[in-house]
Amino acid sequence: MARYFMYLGYDGTNYHGWQIQPNGASVQEELQKALSTLMRRPVEVVGAGRTDAGVHASLMVAHADIDALADAAIWVGKLNRLLPPDIAVYRMRRVADDAHARFDATYRKYQYHVTTSKNPFLRHYAWRVFQPLDFGRMNEAASVLFEYTDFTSFSKLHTDVKTNNCRILYARWEQTGADEWVFTIQADRFLRNMVRAVVGTLVEVGRGKLTIEGFRRVIEAKNRCSAGTSVPGNALFLVDVGYPEHLFLDAEEKASVSSAVNDSHLNS
Amino acid sequence: MARYFMYLGYDGTNYHGWQIQPNGASVQEELQKALSTLMRRPVEVVGAGRTDAGVHASLMVAHADIDALADAAIWVGKLNRLLPPDIAVYRMRRVADDAHARFDATYRKYQYHVTTSKNPFLRHYAWRVFQPLDFGRMNEAASVLFEYTDFTSFSKLHTDVKTNNCRILYARWEQTGADEWVFTIQADRFLRNMVRAVVGTLVEVGRGKLTIEGFRRVIEAKNRCSAGTSVPGNALFLVDVGYPEHLFLDAEEKASVSSAVNDSHLNS
Repeated sequence: MARYFMYLGYDGTNYHGWQIQPNGASVQEELQKALSTLMRRPVEVVGAGRTDAGVHASLMVAHADIDALADAAIWVGKLNRLLPPDIAVYRMRRVADDAHARFDATYRKYQYHVTTSKNPFLRHYAWRVFQPLDFGRMNEAASVLFEYTDFTSFSKLHTDVKTNNCRILYARWEQTGADEWVFTIQADRFLRNMVRAVVGTLVEVGRGKLTIEGFRRVIEAKNRCSAGTSVPGNALFLVDVGYPEHLFLDAEEKASVSSAVNDSHLNS
Repeated sequence: MARYFMYLGYDGTNYHGWQIQPNGASVQEELQKALSTLMRRPVEVVGAGRTDAGVHASLMVAHADIDALADAAIWVGKLNRLLPPDIAVYRMRRVADDAHARFDATYRKYQYHVTTSKNPFLRHYAWRVFQPLDFGRMNEAASVLFEYTDFTSFSKLHTDVKTNNCRILYARWEQTGADEWVFTIQADRFLRNMVRAVVGTLVEVGRGKLTIEGFRRVIEAKNRCSAGTSVPGNALFLVDVGYPEHLFLDAEEKASVSSAVNDSHLNS
Protein backbone atom coordinates (compact mmCIF):
# COMPACT_ATOMS: atom_id res chain seq x y z
CA MET A 1 0.00 0.00 0.00
CA ALA A 2 1.22 3.48 -0.87
CA ARG A 3 -0.32 6.95 -1.10
CA TYR A 4 -0.45 8.74 -4.43
CA PHE A 5 -1.48 12.24 -5.46
CA MET A 6 -3.45 12.18 -8.71
CA TYR A 7 -3.32 15.28 -10.91
CA LEU A 8 -6.49 15.36 -12.97
CA GLY A 9 -8.68 17.62 -15.05
CA TYR A 10 -12.38 17.49 -15.82
CA ASP A 11 -15.07 19.24 -17.79
CA GLY A 12 -17.73 19.79 -15.11
CA THR A 13 -20.59 20.37 -17.56
CA ASN A 14 -22.18 16.96 -17.00
CA TYR A 15 -21.44 16.57 -13.27
CA HIS A 16 -23.17 17.66 -10.10
CA GLY A 17 -19.74 18.62 -8.86
CA TRP A 18 -16.69 16.89 -7.44
CA GLN A 19 -18.23 15.37 -4.34
CA ILE A 20 -20.13 12.05 -4.33
CA GLN A 21 -23.85 12.46 -3.76
CA PRO A 22 -26.87 10.14 -3.68
CA ASN A 23 -28.44 11.35 -6.92
CA GLY A 24 -26.34 12.75 -9.74
CA ALA A 25 -22.97 11.97 -11.33
CA SER A 26 -19.85 13.24 -9.54
CA VAL A 27 -16.19 13.31 -10.55
CA GLN A 28 -15.12 11.72 -7.24
CA GLU A 29 -17.43 8.75 -7.88
CA GLU A 30 -16.11 8.23 -11.43
CA LEU A 31 -12.54 8.35 -10.16
CA GLN A 32 -13.24 5.90 -7.30
CA LYS A 33 -15.01 3.53 -9.72
CA ALA A 34 -12.04 3.54 -12.12
CA LEU A 35 -9.44 3.11 -9.36
CA SER A 36 -11.46 0.35 -7.66
CA THR A 37 -11.77 -1.52 -10.97
CA LEU A 38 -8.02 -1.22 -11.48
CA MET A 39 -7.15 -2.31 -7.91
CA ARG A 40 -9.91 -4.96 -7.75
CA ARG A 41 -11.03 -3.58 -4.35
CA PRO A 42 -12.84 -0.47 -3.10
CA VAL A 43 -10.57 2.58 -3.21
CA GLU A 44 -11.48 5.89 -1.57
CA VAL A 45 -10.37 9.19 -3.12
CA VAL A 46 -9.90 12.45 -1.20
CA GLY A 47 -9.89 15.68 -3.21
CA ALA A 48 -8.09 18.97 -2.52
CA GLY A 49 -11.53 20.54 -2.29
CA ARG A 50 -15.03 20.27 -3.66
CA THR A 51 -16.12 22.00 -6.83
CA ASP A 52 -19.82 22.81 -7.31
CA ALA A 53 -22.13 21.60 -10.09
CA GLY A 54 -20.90 22.59 -13.55
CA VAL A 55 -17.56 23.90 -12.25
CA HIS A 56 -14.52 22.71 -14.23
CA ALA A 57 -11.01 21.80 -13.18
CA SER A 58 -8.04 22.11 -15.49
CA LEU A 59 -6.09 20.90 -12.48
CA MET A 60 -7.51 19.11 -9.42
CA VAL A 61 -5.45 17.03 -7.01
CA ALA A 62 -6.76 14.01 -5.08
CA HIS A 63 -5.05 11.34 -2.97
CA ALA A 64 -5.71 7.61 -2.68
CA ASP A 65 -4.03 4.63 -1.02
CA ILE A 66 -3.30 1.96 -3.62
CA ASP A 67 -0.75 -0.74 -4.39
CA ALA A 68 2.73 0.68 -4.94
CA LEU A 69 3.22 1.21 -8.69
CA ALA A 70 6.37 0.19 -10.52
CA ASP A 71 5.56 2.62 -13.33
CA ALA A 72 2.90 5.23 -12.52
CA ALA A 73 2.74 6.38 -16.17
CA ILE A 74 1.32 3.01 -17.25
CA TRP A 75 -1.41 3.25 -14.61
CA VAL A 76 -2.26 6.77 -15.71
CA GLY A 77 -2.95 5.31 -19.17
CA LYS A 78 -5.08 2.48 -17.76
CA LEU A 79 -7.05 4.92 -15.59
CA ASN A 80 -7.73 7.22 -18.54
CA ARG A 81 -9.10 4.34 -20.59
CA LEU A 82 -11.49 3.50 -17.71
CA LEU A 83 -12.53 7.12 -17.06
CA PRO A 84 -15.15 8.91 -19.21
CA PRO A 85 -13.86 11.31 -21.92
CA ASP A 86 -14.59 14.38 -19.79
CA ILE A 87 -12.24 13.31 -16.97
CA ALA A 88 -8.50 12.80 -17.43
CA VAL A 89 -5.71 11.87 -15.03
CA TYR A 90 -2.55 13.74 -16.07
CA ARG A 91 -0.13 12.23 -13.59
CA MET A 92 0.27 10.20 -10.37
CA ARG A 93 2.94 11.04 -7.81
CA ARG A 94 4.02 8.93 -4.84
CA VAL A 95 3.70 10.94 -1.61
CA ALA A 96 4.29 10.41 2.12
CA ASP A 97 1.77 8.02 3.67
CA ASP A 98 0.25 10.86 5.74
CA ALA A 99 0.20 13.45 2.92
CA HIS A 100 -3.33 14.85 2.55
CA ALA A 101 -4.68 16.37 -0.70
CA ARG A 102 -6.96 18.76 1.23
CA PHE A 103 -5.16 19.58 4.49
CA ASP A 104 -1.64 19.86 3.05
CA ALA A 105 -2.58 22.19 0.18
CA THR A 106 -0.72 25.51 0.59
CA TYR A 107 -2.83 27.36 -2.00
CA ARG A 108 -5.65 26.96 -4.52
CA LYS A 109 -6.02 28.98 -7.70
CA TYR A 110 -9.28 29.60 -9.58
CA GLN A 111 -10.14 31.39 -12.80
CA TYR A 112 -13.51 32.86 -13.79
CA HIS A 113 -14.15 33.47 -17.50
CA VAL A 114 -16.33 36.29 -18.80
CA THR A 115 -17.24 36.97 -22.42
CA THR A 116 -18.86 40.17 -23.67
CA SER A 117 -20.05 38.64 -26.98
CA LYS A 118 -21.88 35.47 -28.01
CA ASN A 119 -19.29 32.73 -28.56
CA PRO A 120 -20.55 29.22 -29.51
CA PHE A 121 -17.33 27.64 -28.22
CA LEU A 122 -17.46 29.25 -24.78
CA ARG A 123 -21.12 28.58 -23.97
CA HIS A 124 -20.15 25.99 -21.33
CA TYR A 125 -16.93 27.72 -20.23
CA ALA A 126 -17.57 31.46 -19.87
CA TRP A 127 -20.26 33.74 -18.45
CA ARG A 128 -21.88 35.97 -21.06
CA VAL A 129 -22.34 39.52 -19.78
CA PHE A 130 -24.51 41.99 -21.68
CA GLN A 131 -23.89 45.27 -19.87
CA PRO A 132 -20.48 46.91 -20.37
CA LEU A 133 -18.14 46.33 -17.42
CA ASP A 134 -15.44 48.68 -16.14
CA PHE A 135 -12.65 46.16 -15.57
CA GLY A 136 -10.33 48.90 -14.33
CA ARG A 137 -12.69 49.63 -11.44
CA MET A 138 -13.14 45.91 -10.86
CA ASN A 139 -9.38 45.55 -10.46
CA GLU A 140 -9.35 48.49 -8.04
CA ALA A 141 -11.95 46.65 -5.97
CA ALA A 142 -10.11 43.33 -6.34
CA SER A 143 -6.97 44.89 -4.86
CA VAL A 144 -9.03 45.75 -1.75
CA LEU A 145 -9.36 42.00 -1.06
CA PHE A 146 -5.70 41.88 0.02
CA GLU A 147 -6.49 44.14 3.00
CA TYR A 148 -8.87 41.61 4.56
CA THR A 149 -8.76 38.03 5.84
CA ASP A 150 -12.33 37.41 7.10
CA PHE A 151 -14.52 36.71 4.06
CA THR A 152 -17.72 35.64 5.84
CA SER A 153 -19.62 37.96 3.48
CA PHE A 154 -18.63 35.75 0.52
CA SER A 155 -19.31 32.42 2.22
CA LYS A 156 -22.28 30.09 1.95
CA LEU A 157 -24.37 30.27 5.13
CA HIS A 158 -24.33 27.45 7.71
CA THR A 159 -21.09 25.74 6.67
CA ASP A 160 -19.19 23.66 9.21
CA VAL A 161 -15.80 25.36 8.85
CA LYS A 162 -14.23 26.70 12.06
CA THR A 163 -12.85 29.91 10.57
CA ASN A 164 -13.76 32.18 7.65
CA ASN A 165 -10.21 33.53 7.33
CA CYS A 166 -8.41 33.28 3.99
CA ARG A 167 -5.14 34.81 2.83
CA ILE A 168 -5.57 36.26 -0.68
CA LEU A 169 -2.38 35.75 -2.72
CA TYR A 170 -3.56 36.98 -6.14
CA ALA A 171 -6.74 38.62 -7.43
CA ARG A 172 -6.84 40.27 -10.85
CA TRP A 173 -8.90 40.62 -14.05
CA GLU A 174 -6.98 40.19 -17.29
CA GLN A 175 -8.11 40.45 -20.91
CA THR A 176 -7.48 37.19 -22.80
CA GLY A 177 -9.23 37.88 -26.12
CA ALA A 178 -11.08 40.54 -28.12
CA ASP A 179 -14.22 40.01 -25.99
CA GLU A 180 -12.86 37.82 -23.20
CA TRP A 181 -11.74 38.50 -19.65
CA VAL A 182 -10.51 36.17 -16.95
CA PHE A 183 -10.47 36.78 -13.19
CA THR A 184 -7.66 34.85 -11.48
CA ILE A 185 -7.81 34.48 -7.72
CA GLN A 186 -5.35 32.57 -5.55
CA ALA A 187 -5.58 32.05 -1.79
CA ASP A 188 -4.38 29.65 0.88
CA ARG A 189 -7.99 28.47 1.16
CA PHE A 190 -11.46 29.37 -0.10
CA LEU A 191 -14.88 29.27 1.57
CA ARG A 192 -17.81 27.51 -0.09
CA ASN A 193 -19.14 29.57 -3.01
CA MET A 194 -16.55 32.27 -2.27
CA VAL A 195 -15.12 32.83 -5.77
CA ARG A 196 -18.54 33.11 -7.41
CA ALA A 197 -19.75 35.52 -4.71
CA VAL A 198 -16.58 37.65 -5.04
CA VAL A 199 -16.98 37.76 -8.84
CA GLY A 200 -20.69 38.61 -8.54
CA THR A 201 -19.88 41.51 -6.22
CA LEU A 202 -16.97 42.73 -8.38
CA VAL A 203 -19.32 42.72 -11.38
CA GLU A 204 -21.65 45.08 -9.45
CA VAL A 205 -18.67 47.41 -9.11
CA GLY A 206 -17.98 47.03 -12.84
CA ARG A 207 -21.58 48.00 -13.60
CA GLY A 208 -21.34 51.08 -11.41
CA LYS A 209 -23.91 49.73 -8.94
CA LEU A 210 -21.32 49.50 -6.16
CA THR A 211 -18.44 51.86 -5.28
CA ILE A 212 -15.02 50.76 -4.03
CA GLU A 213 -16.10 52.02 -0.60
CA GLY A 214 -19.32 50.04 -0.94
CA PHE A 215 -17.24 46.96 -1.77
CA ARG A 216 -15.27 47.51 1.45
CA ARG A 217 -18.48 47.78 3.44
CA VAL A 218 -19.70 44.49 1.95
CA ILE A 219 -16.59 42.72 3.25
CA GLU A 220 -16.70 44.45 6.62
CA ALA A 221 -20.39 43.57 7.13
CA LYS A 222 -19.28 39.90 7.48
CA ASN A 223 -22.77 39.03 6.31
CA ARG A 224 -23.49 36.97 3.18
CA CYS A 225 -26.63 38.98 2.44
CA SER A 226 -24.58 42.14 1.90
CA ALA A 227 -22.65 40.67 -1.04
CA GLY A 228 -23.76 40.46 -4.67
CA THR A 229 -25.47 37.37 -6.07
CA SER A 230 -23.05 34.62 -7.04
CA VAL A 231 -22.37 34.09 -10.74
CA PRO A 232 -22.92 30.85 -12.76
CA GLY A 233 -20.63 27.91 -11.98
CA ASN A 234 -19.92 26.76 -15.55
CA ALA A 235 -17.51 29.68 -16.11
CA LEU A 236 -15.39 28.76 -13.07
CA PHE A 237 -12.19 26.68 -13.30
CA LEU A 238 -10.00 25.28 -10.55
CA VAL A 239 -6.59 25.69 -12.24
CA ASP A 240 -3.96 24.84 -9.63
CA VAL A 241 -3.33 23.47 -6.14
CA GLY A 242 0.03 23.86 -4.39
CA TYR A 243 1.83 21.52 -1.96
CA PRO A 244 5.18 21.62 -0.13
CA GLU A 245 7.84 19.71 -2.12
CA HIS A 246 8.80 17.54 0.87
CA LEU A 247 5.53 15.59 0.58
CA PHE A 248 6.65 14.04 -2.70
CA LEU A 249 8.68 10.86 -2.58
CA ASP A 250 9.47 10.93 -6.30
CA ALA A 251 12.26 13.13 -7.59
CA GLU A 252 10.49 14.95 -10.41
CA GLU A 253 9.40 18.57 -10.53
CA LYS A 254 5.71 19.33 -10.16
CA ALA A 255 5.69 22.91 -11.49
CA SER A 256 6.38 21.86 -15.08
CA VAL A 257 3.34 19.60 -15.19
CA SER A 258 0.81 21.84 -13.50
CA SER A 259 1.77 24.72 -15.79
CA ALA A 260 1.61 22.52 -18.89
CA VAL A 261 -1.79 21.33 -17.70
CA ASN A 262 -3.00 24.88 -17.13
CA ASP A 263 -1.96 25.85 -20.65
CA SER A 264 -4.04 23.05 -22.02
CA HIS A 265 -7.53 23.88 -20.80
CA LEU A 266 -9.28 26.72 -22.66
CA ASN A 267 -6.03 28.38 -23.62
CA SER A 268 -5.08 25.53 -25.92
CA MET B 1 -34.31 44.20 -50.59
CA ALA B 2 -30.57 44.09 -50.19
CA ARG B 3 -27.91 41.36 -50.06
CA TYR B 4 -25.90 40.83 -46.90
CA PHE B 5 -22.93 38.66 -46.04
CA MET B 6 -23.32 37.15 -42.57
CA TYR B 7 -20.13 36.27 -40.67
CA LEU B 8 -20.98 33.49 -38.24
CA GLY B 9 -19.44 30.80 -36.08
CA TYR B 10 -20.85 27.50 -34.84
CA ASP B 11 -19.99 24.53 -32.70
CA GLY B 12 -20.80 21.65 -35.05
CA THR B 13 -21.02 19.01 -32.32
CA ASN B 14 -24.82 18.81 -32.39
CA TYR B 15 -25.36 19.32 -36.13
CA HIS B 16 -25.40 17.02 -39.13
CA GLY B 17 -23.39 19.70 -40.89
CA TRP B 18 -24.03 23.06 -42.54
CA GLN B 19 -26.40 21.95 -45.28
CA ILE B 20 -30.16 21.48 -44.75
CA GLN B 21 -31.22 17.83 -44.89
CA PRO B 22 -34.48 15.91 -44.39
CA ASN B 23 -33.53 14.29 -41.09
CA GLY B 24 -31.12 15.94 -38.68
CA ALA B 25 -30.41 19.49 -37.49
CA SER B 26 -28.33 21.73 -39.75
CA VAL B 27 -26.76 25.15 -39.23
CA GLN B 28 -28.24 26.46 -42.48
CA GLU B 29 -31.74 25.52 -41.32
CA GLU B 30 -31.30 27.24 -37.93
CA LEU B 31 -30.02 30.38 -39.66
CA GLN B 32 -32.88 30.42 -42.19
CA LYS B 33 -35.42 29.91 -39.38
CA ALA B 34 -34.02 32.84 -37.39
CA LEU B 35 -33.79 35.16 -40.41
CA SER B 36 -37.28 34.21 -41.61
CA THR B 37 -38.71 34.94 -38.14
CA LEU B 38 -36.99 38.32 -38.15
CA MET B 39 -38.12 39.21 -41.69
CA ARG B 40 -41.59 37.67 -41.28
CA ARG B 41 -41.15 35.83 -44.61
CA PRO B 42 -39.13 32.84 -45.87
CA VAL B 43 -35.46 33.80 -46.30
CA GLU B 44 -32.96 31.56 -48.08
CA VAL B 45 -29.33 31.44 -46.97
CA VAL B 46 -26.39 30.46 -49.19
CA GLY B 47 -23.16 29.43 -47.47
CA ALA B 48 -19.55 29.75 -48.66
CA GLY B 49 -19.43 25.96 -48.58
CA ARG B 50 -20.79 22.96 -46.76
CA THR B 51 -19.20 21.56 -43.62
CA ASP B 52 -19.78 17.90 -42.76
CA ALA B 53 -21.40 16.46 -39.62
CA GLY B 54 -19.60 17.53 -36.44
CA VAL B 55 -17.31 19.99 -38.25
CA HIS B 56 -17.04 23.41 -36.57
CA ALA B 57 -16.71 26.90 -37.99
CA SER B 58 -15.02 29.73 -36.11
CA LEU B 59 -15.78 31.71 -39.25
CA MET B 60 -18.35 30.81 -41.92
CA VAL B 61 -19.80 33.30 -44.40
CA ALA B 62 -23.29 33.08 -45.89
CA HIS B 63 -25.39 35.49 -47.96
CA ALA B 64 -29.10 36.29 -47.86
CA ASP B 65 -31.43 38.84 -49.47
CA ILE B 66 -33.30 40.74 -46.78
CA ASP B 67 -34.74 44.19 -46.12
CA ALA B 68 -32.06 46.90 -46.14
CA LEU B 69 -30.94 47.47 -42.53
CA ALA B 70 -30.48 50.92 -41.03
CA ASP B 71 -28.17 49.48 -38.36
CA ALA B 72 -26.87 45.96 -39.04
CA ALA B 73 -25.43 45.70 -35.50
CA ILE B 74 -28.93 45.79 -33.98
CA TRP B 75 -30.05 42.94 -36.26
CA VAL B 76 -26.98 40.90 -35.34
CA GLY B 77 -28.15 41.14 -31.73
CA LYS B 78 -31.72 40.14 -32.61
CA LEU B 79 -30.47 37.20 -34.70
CA ASN B 80 -28.23 35.95 -31.88
CA ARG B 81 -31.14 35.96 -29.46
CA LEU B 82 -33.16 33.83 -31.92
CA LEU B 83 -30.29 31.45 -32.74
CA PRO B 84 -29.34 28.52 -30.43
CA PRO B 85 -26.33 29.04 -28.11
CA ASP B 86 -24.04 27.01 -30.39
CA ILE B 87 -24.50 29.34 -33.38
CA ALA B 88 -23.52 33.02 -33.35
CA VAL B 89 -23.64 35.74 -36.00
CA TYR B 90 -20.63 38.01 -35.54
CA ARG B 91 -21.43 40.60 -38.17
CA MET B 92 -23.54 41.45 -41.23
CA ARG B 93 -22.12 43.37 -44.18
CA ARG B 94 -24.03 44.92 -47.08
CA VAL B 95 -22.69 43.58 -50.40
CA ALA B 96 -23.42 44.00 -54.13
CA ASP B 97 -26.76 42.44 -55.13
CA ASP B 98 -24.96 39.81 -57.21
CA ALA B 99 -22.25 39.01 -54.63
CA HIS B 100 -22.22 35.26 -53.93
CA ALA B 101 -20.90 33.71 -50.68
CA ARG B 102 -19.79 30.55 -52.49
CA PHE B 103 -18.78 31.59 -56.00
CA ASP B 104 -17.04 34.85 -55.06
CA ALA B 105 -14.88 33.34 -52.31
CA THR B 106 -11.19 33.74 -53.22
CA TYR B 107 -9.96 31.32 -50.53
CA ARG B 108 -11.04 29.10 -47.66
CA LYS B 109 -8.92 28.27 -44.63
CA TYR B 110 -9.33 25.19 -42.41
CA GLN B 111 -7.60 24.00 -39.26
CA TYR B 112 -7.37 20.43 -37.99
CA HIS B 113 -6.60 19.92 -34.29
CA VAL B 114 -4.64 16.95 -32.96
CA THR B 115 -3.90 16.17 -29.31
CA THR B 116 -1.39 13.55 -28.15
CA SER B 117 -2.82 13.32 -24.61
CA LYS B 118 -6.31 12.94 -23.11
CA ASN B 119 -7.81 16.41 -22.65
CA PRO B 120 -11.37 16.68 -21.28
CA PHE B 121 -11.80 20.13 -22.81
CA LEU B 122 -10.79 19.11 -26.34
CA ARG B 123 -12.86 15.92 -26.63
CA HIS B 124 -15.22 17.58 -29.14
CA TYR B 125 -12.57 19.79 -30.76
CA ALA B 126 -9.41 17.74 -31.35
CA TRP B 127 -8.50 14.27 -32.59
CA ARG B 128 -6.72 12.16 -30.00
CA VAL B 129 -3.77 10.27 -31.50
CA PHE B 130 -2.08 7.49 -29.55
CA GLN B 131 0.96 6.63 -31.66
CA PRO B 132 3.79 9.20 -31.74
CA LEU B 133 3.75 11.33 -34.90
CA ASP B 134 6.77 12.80 -36.72
CA PHE B 135 5.40 16.28 -37.42
CA GLY B 136 8.64 17.26 -39.17
CA ARG B 137 8.05 14.54 -41.78
CA MET B 138 4.40 15.51 -41.99
CA ASN B 139 5.41 19.08 -42.84
CA GLU B 140 7.84 17.76 -45.46
CA ALA B 141 4.93 15.89 -47.03
CA ALA B 142 2.59 18.88 -46.62
CA SER B 143 5.00 21.06 -48.63
CA VAL B 144 4.65 18.56 -51.50
CA LEU B 145 0.99 19.61 -51.83
CA PHE B 146 2.10 22.94 -53.37
CA GLU B 147 3.51 21.10 -56.40
CA TYR B 148 0.12 19.74 -57.43
CA THR B 149 -3.30 21.10 -58.40
CA ASP B 150 -5.34 17.93 -59.13
CA PHE B 151 -6.43 16.45 -55.80
CA THR B 152 -8.79 13.76 -57.08
CA SER B 153 -7.08 11.34 -54.68
CA PHE B 154 -8.39 13.34 -51.71
CA SER B 155 -11.91 13.86 -53.02
CA LYS B 156 -15.12 12.01 -52.17
CA LEU B 157 -16.10 9.77 -55.09
CA HIS B 158 -19.00 10.65 -57.43
CA THR B 159 -19.23 14.38 -56.67
CA ASP B 160 -20.78 16.68 -59.26
CA VAL B 161 -17.91 19.18 -59.46
CA LYS B 162 -16.48 19.84 -62.93
CA THR B 163 -12.84 20.02 -61.90
CA ASN B 164 -10.74 18.58 -59.07
CA ASN B 165 -8.15 21.36 -59.34
CA CYS B 166 -7.30 23.40 -56.24
CA ARG B 167 -4.54 25.93 -55.63
CA ILE B 168 -2.93 25.28 -52.22
CA LEU B 169 -1.96 28.60 -50.57
CA TYR B 170 -0.85 27.33 -47.15
CA ALA B 171 -0.35 23.89 -45.60
CA ARG B 172 1.55 23.46 -42.36
CA TRP B 173 1.51 21.71 -38.97
CA GLU B 174 2.22 23.94 -35.97
CA GLN B 175 2.49 23.12 -32.26
CA THR B 176 -0.02 25.10 -30.20
CA GLY B 177 0.39 23.51 -26.74
CA ALA B 178 2.39 20.97 -24.78
CA ASP B 179 0.47 18.09 -26.42
CA GLU B 180 -1.40 19.94 -29.18
CA TRP B 181 -0.80 20.40 -32.87
CA VAL B 182 -2.82 22.19 -35.52
CA PHE B 183 -2.71 21.66 -39.28
CA THR B 184 -3.66 24.84 -41.16
CA ILE B 185 -4.53 24.52 -44.84
CA GLN B 186 -5.64 27.33 -47.14
CA ALA B 187 -6.66 26.98 -50.78
CA ASP B 188 -8.74 28.78 -53.38
CA ARG B 189 -11.22 25.88 -53.10
CA PHE B 190 -11.53 22.45 -51.49
CA LEU B 191 -13.09 19.19 -52.70
CA ARG B 192 -15.59 17.31 -50.54
CA ASN B 193 -13.84 15.57 -47.65
CA MET B 194 -10.46 16.84 -48.94
CA VAL B 195 -9.00 18.25 -45.69
CA ARG B 196 -9.80 15.13 -43.67
CA ALA B 197 -8.36 12.86 -46.38
CA VAL B 198 -5.20 15.00 -46.62
CA VAL B 199 -4.77 14.92 -42.82
CA GLY B 200 -5.41 11.16 -42.72
CA THR B 201 -2.73 10.59 -45.35
CA LEU B 202 -0.25 12.99 -43.69
CA VAL B 203 -0.76 11.09 -40.42
CA GLU B 204 0.31 7.88 -42.21
CA VAL B 205 3.52 9.70 -43.13
CA GLY B 206 3.88 10.81 -39.49
CA ARG B 207 3.53 7.19 -38.37
CA GLY B 208 6.19 6.03 -40.82
CA LYS B 209 3.68 3.98 -42.81
CA LEU B 210 4.09 6.20 -45.88
CA THR B 211 7.23 7.85 -47.31
CA ILE B 212 7.32 11.33 -48.89
CA GLU B 213 7.64 9.55 -52.24
CA GLY B 214 4.70 7.37 -51.35
CA PHE B 215 2.71 10.54 -50.53
CA ARG B 216 3.56 11.87 -54.01
CA ARG B 217 2.36 8.63 -55.58
CA VAL B 218 -0.93 8.90 -53.68
CA ILE B 219 -1.57 12.33 -55.22
CA GLU B 220 -0.42 11.25 -58.69
CA ALA B 221 -2.67 8.17 -58.63
CA LYS B 222 -5.68 10.55 -58.85
CA ASN B 223 -7.64 7.78 -57.18
CA ARG B 224 -9.40 8.17 -53.80
CA CYS B 225 -8.63 4.58 -52.84
CA SER B 226 -4.90 5.29 -52.83
CA ALA B 227 -5.16 7.91 -50.04
CA GLY B 228 -5.33 7.27 -46.29
CA THR B 229 -8.63 7.01 -44.45
CA SER B 230 -10.13 10.38 -43.58
CA VAL B 231 -9.90 11.53 -39.96
CA PRO B 232 -12.85 12.44 -37.64
CA GLY B 233 -14.80 15.62 -38.44
CA ASN B 234 -15.15 17.01 -34.92
CA ALA B 235 -11.50 18.16 -34.92
CA LEU B 236 -11.93 20.21 -38.11
CA PHE B 237 -12.64 23.96 -38.11
CA LEU B 238 -13.45 26.27 -41.00
CA VAL B 239 -11.60 29.39 -39.80
CA ASP B 240 -11.71 31.92 -42.65
CA VAL B 241 -13.21 32.71 -46.06
CA GLY B 242 -11.82 35.49 -48.24
CA TYR B 243 -13.59 37.84 -50.71
CA PRO B 244 -12.50 40.72 -52.95
CA GLU B 245 -13.02 44.07 -51.16
CA HIS B 246 -15.03 45.52 -54.06
CA LEU B 247 -18.00 43.29 -53.18
CA PHE B 248 -18.60 45.20 -49.96
CA LEU B 249 -20.81 48.26 -50.08
CA ASP B 250 -19.99 49.28 -46.50
CA ALA B 251 -16.77 51.15 -45.78
CA GLU B 252 -15.38 49.06 -42.91
CA GLU B 253 -12.45 46.70 -43.00
CA LYS B 254 -13.15 42.97 -43.01
CA ALA B 255 -9.71 41.69 -42.03
CA SER B 256 -9.90 43.04 -38.49
CA VAL B 257 -13.13 41.18 -37.76
CA SER B 258 -12.25 37.83 -39.26
CA SER B 259 -8.96 37.80 -37.38
CA ALA B 260 -10.66 38.80 -34.12
CA VAL B 261 -13.16 36.04 -34.73
CA ASN B 262 -10.45 33.49 -35.42
CA ASP B 263 -8.74 34.41 -32.15
CA SER B 264 -11.94 33.66 -30.33
CA HIS B 265 -12.54 30.00 -31.12
CA LEU B 266 -10.36 27.50 -29.28
CA ASN B 267 -7.54 29.97 -28.85
CA SER B 268 -9.56 32.11 -26.47
